[in-house]
Amino acid sequence: MTPEPLNRLIAQLARLPGIGEKTAQRLAFYILRAPPQYARDLSQALQEVVEKVRLCARCFSLTDQELCGFCLDARRDDRILCVVEGLADLMAVERTREFKGRYHVLHGVLSPLEGVGPDQLRIKELLARLEPGRVEEVIVATNPDVEGEATALYLTRLLKPMGLKVTRIAQGVPMGGDLEYADQATLARALSARREL
Amino acid sequence: MTPEPLNRLIAQLARLPGIGEKTAQRLAFYILRAPPQYARDLSQALQEVVEKVRLCARCFSLTDQELCGFCLDARRDDRILCVVEGLADLMAVERTREFKGRYHVLHGVLSPLEGVGPDQLRIKELLARLEPGRVEEVIVATNPDVEGEATALYLTRLLKPMGLKVTRIAQGVPMGGDLEYADQATLARALSARREL
Repeated sequence: MTPEPLNRLIAQLARLPGIGEKTAQRLAFYILRAPPQYARDLSQALQEVVEKVRLCARCFSLTDQELCGFCLDARRDDRILCVVEGLADLMAVERTREFKGRYHVLHGVLSPLEGVGPDQLRIKELLARLEPGRVEEVIVATNPDVEGEATALYLTRLLKPMGLKVTRIAQGVPMGGDLEYADQATLARALSARREL
Repeated sequence: MTPEPLNRLIAQLARLPGIGEKTAQRLAFYILRAPPQYARDLSQALQEVVEKVRLCARCFSLTDQELCGFCLDARRDDRILCVVEGLADLMAVERTREFKGRYHVLHGVLSPLEGVGPDQLRIKELLARLEPGRVEEVIVATNPDVEGEATALYLTRLLKPMGLKVTRIAQGVPMGGDLEYADQATLARALSARREL
């Protein structure tokens, strides 16, 4: 009974992750009630993003040129490289404002069960970037879960023999957290990786 | 550091209700990873919805013609009219498959605090539809909250003198609910509106 263009919009919105049929309907109603310019702006932004945004030829983050802003920025430190699983992880690292080196985005993690091996990730391209004498340290910032740890181990075995310093982001109790509510694995890791003050 | 077209898409997505900056970023990354046809389809759907979908000239639900499917459907009962606040409420009533009459969408509720009076709602248009002898019953299905109740009362005072049967959707404990967890107001209403078996 609802008009066909509305059904189509709801169906397309419902394909987004975390957006079910009901949320898609609510969003579509919002779009209809908003000034029509909003739908036009969003429509335009969608088209431009797929036309113009692509992966950086060096680090595989996003760019609308050949190389991304992180790779082109002369103020960033070439000697230190942070390897992340995905784009959202890169953004999270960047938000800390603690890291001023370069990035490399793997676009996934090793996951034999899902058929993801080293060839499906940007590992060959990572090795090609590591010219001797330029990069000194590689920070492996994959997620602290089973696949992320396995990927970190795999990268360490590849990179150490190349004479690089390979480091892993620290694992322990999160800031502002409560020991009482920390899970066993996290607290065990926090104990074994304790630091002298 | 992120490419401008991506920032624009994130900003547009973050204007949607219930979508914050982080969710907008996650959706934008999903759109970029999906086959480009998806972004084009969604873009197209957005444009079409604002170009083609408008309010039905009779009941003010949505349509891409002059009148909507509910108003045009000859199998629906002209003698009974269901008045709802908004489009999502109409959909909710329709999903029950219990109602086969016509609809009227007010597009809001009376709310003096927010400056919404009878003239801001589709009440004049409702009165104009109620030709004597055609409609017999008006079901007032506004929400069971303060504004919805006030609107129901207002409509009752307008419609009763016109010789119409005005009814209100029942209020009580929800199906599958638990008396222990029902709020006082709901349980009090369920008691006072008890039915003989």
